[in-house]
Amino acid sequence: MSLEVSNRNTMMQESPIRKLAPFADRAKEKGIKVYHLNIGQPDIKTPEGMRAAYRETPEIVAYGPSAGLASYREKLAGYYRSRGIDISAEDVFITTGGSEAIIFSFLAALSPGDEVIVPEPFYTNYNGFAVMAGVKIVPITTTIENGFHLPTIEDFEKVRTDKTRAVLFSNPGNPTGAVFTREALEDLADFARRYKLYLISDEAYREFTYGEREAVSILELSGLEENAILIDSVSKRYSACGARVGTLISRNKKLMEVVLKFGQARLCPPTIDQMAAEAAVDTPDDYFKEVNAEYKKRRDFAFQALSDIPGVTVKKPEGAFYIIAQLPISDADHFAKWMLSDFSYNGATTMVAPAAGFYATEGLGKNQIRIAYVLNTGDLKNALEVLKEGLKKYVDSGLGG
Amino acid sequence: MSLEVSNRNTMMQESPIRKLAPFADRAKEKGIKVYHLNIGQPDIKTPEGMRAAYRETPEIVAYGPSAGLASYREKLAGYYRSRGIDISAEDVFITTGGSEAIIFSFLAALSPGDEVIVPEPFYTNYNGFAVMAGVKIVPITTTIENGFHLPTIEDFEKVRTDKTRAVLFSNPGNPTGAVFTREALEDLADFARRYKLYLISDEAYREFTYGEREAVSILELSGLEENAILIDSVSKRYSACGARVGTLISRNKKLMEVVLKFGQARLCPPTIDQMAAEAAVDTPDDYFKEVNAEYKKRRDFAFQALSDIPGVTVKKPEGAFYIIAQLPISDADHFAKWMLSDFSYNGATTMVAPAAGFYATEGLGKNQIRIAYVLNTGDLKNALEVLKEGLKKYVDSGLGG
Repeated sequence: MSLEVSNRNTMMQESPIRKLAPFADRAKEKGIKVYHLNIGQPDIKTPEGMRAAYRETPEIVAYGPSAGLASYREKLAGYYRSRGIDISAEDVFITTGGSEAIIFSFLAALSPGDEVIVPEPFYTNYNGFAVMAGVKIVPITTTIENGFHLPTIEDFEKVRTDKTRAVLFSNPGNPTGAVFTREALEDLADFARRYKLYLISDEAYREFTYGEREAVSILELSGLEENAILIDSVSKRYSACGARVGTLISRNKKLMEVVLKFGQARLCPPTIDQMAAEAAVDTPDDYFKEVNAEYKKRRDFAFQALSDIPGVTVKKPEGAFYIIAQLPISDADHFAKWMLSDFSYNGATTMVAPAAGFYATEGLGKNQIRIAYVLNTGDLKNALEVLKEGLKKYVDSGLGG
Repeated sequence: MSLEVSNRNTMMQESPIRKLAPFADRAKEKGIKVYHLNIGQPDIKTPEGMRAAYRETPEIVAYGPSAGLASYREKLAGYYRSRGIDISAEDVFITTGGSEAIIFSFLAALSPGDEVIVPEPFYTNYNGFAVMAGVKIVPITTTIENGFHLPTIEDFEKVRTDKTRAVLFSNPGNPTGAVFTREALEDLADFARRYKLYLISDEAYREFTYGEREAVSILELSGLEENAILIDSVSKRYSACGARVGTLISRNKKLMEVVLKFGQARLCPPTIDQMAAEAAVDTPDDYFKEVNAEYKKRRDFAFQALSDIPGVTVKKPEGAFYIIAQLPISDADHFAKWMLSDFSYNGATTMVAPAAGFYATEGLGKNQIRIAYVLNTGDLKNALEVLKEGLKKYVDSGLGG
């Protein structure tokens, strides 16, 4: 007798990052401390200059232009130019978070039914954006043995069809931490030019690299004027995830006209947050040096601590603040729930994201978890010790399968 | 040789509210003052309590829950209960503006290819949301002679098909200012129950009524637990259009589960703006009394001034802050552009929204404009005088067609 809901419901996956939240809530109600390694919410302070801008809220919190505040677009273009990415303000479209930038790139570049190739494991919300836009994600598998680096172009050729219109990837990678080489990106650029594909490069973690390799922006490569779409966000750069300010950048004028139409429909991104994001561009270099040094320390610590747990496989990630760990168990989903429901150590437990949800290919990643090293090293040490003890007890109890 | 863009491009209409902006910019560059009656951006100050909340920005601008801040959902539920709308916090989902609330209601309630009946003229961005969600808007025409009130259920029966899954309307109406009678809504409720349709009621202007008739919320009607979806926003209530905080409210649990999945994909609405919106709920009644009195004055003034222009037809709107005027010309689009490009009076011109873009039926509304009475009466007086003089000159020059 009840009303039907959309048939999209069955296509929408639960978020592996957020779906276990009710279990975490119950653990907290029982008085257990929960270390959140499941979500990329950094504990780093938002820069003071950005926060100060919120205090300057004008008398009327008014609509801004659909493409974003003109002064912010101009300033952001300067920011990219100073980093070797030659663009102008017209190439910059401000979005409500990086999320909306990806949705708009799907809506504007792809038609319903079109296919987009995405290296897996990938940021799980790409699935939801694809459902919203009615496009199909075709996964191409990367492996932990290979540090989750890009497959060869021969592999890309195998999954390409007549419906393929784009390749989407994050670089540095979420959830993998992989930073792609310039050579791999150049190969991908050739592939994109050959088949007239969009290359949608999610660079929300571009500055988060730790000495092994700098992240190359898609807009640094030449001959991709038509193909390249850069997705960016202030969320991680300024530890301002709640500001919901992102950007879609492309030199493809025709595409940007279509993006504007979708942008006009939703009126504008949040105004005061954009003002704050504009102020954030002036954040002194010291802030980033400090933040980067802190994340490098965490990365090194998390990698070592995980490597030291018997039966655990990890590769050192080159960027972002995630690391995928392969565990000696058969069902990481069950393990993650068990950690929250049935285990504590010194009054604490650790919440992780089961990795299967980051794969589109059924059955892959079931023995993997994603860890976000977003806690200070003291908490991170405790969290990983709890994880180690939990894993030991889980396996010793015969639950590992 | 260039890459194809989405086939959605041709389905996306330009915004009649924003598309003439480049012409306005050029007028301003020539030193002409432009009165903006085209867009619903009020000149009313955002309440001090709401602005104060921005100044309390915490050290980390962090993600919030996907359904919105728990404290805000709770507070909003109390706000609605105090106004006779019996709901609890779980029925309340916070969105990024009312825009996202409508997109999510389409995505969650309708499948691609489904139809939604919308009385026309309607808020033009409903078109864009429908394209995003791959659903089809089926218009049902209302007329200026009838004050843009709801057609009979017999008329609804005529446009309903097997694919109809919802009726969407704004009440009070944008762009019409019509406030629907309780009887008309009860009839529509019967229709929705009979055919298992969702009723999506956009009530962003609910408090903006001027004595003739109060707006009845869809959630005040009984027996619609499964069907009713209320769309709301802080944009107009608190003159905070740039905050991008809206809400989708429904007692349909199954539907709300699907909405949450889409909400999780985009992570969360802007955090600081939600805190500000939460503070706004405590805005003293005096603020609204003053605002309402001001808008009533403007409504009465605009209605009278337009009525007094020879050849212009208007009906007195009961709510919102829009009024549709029918002009003695054949192409309001051309007239609106001409006002910006070729006319000024005492160094000023007036920007209006041509109404054809608010109709889905080709050819309708071509002699109508929408006026947003969002300026103080002094400016409004000047703006309408300029409009009157412009219209006179336009018709006298033989441009009226």
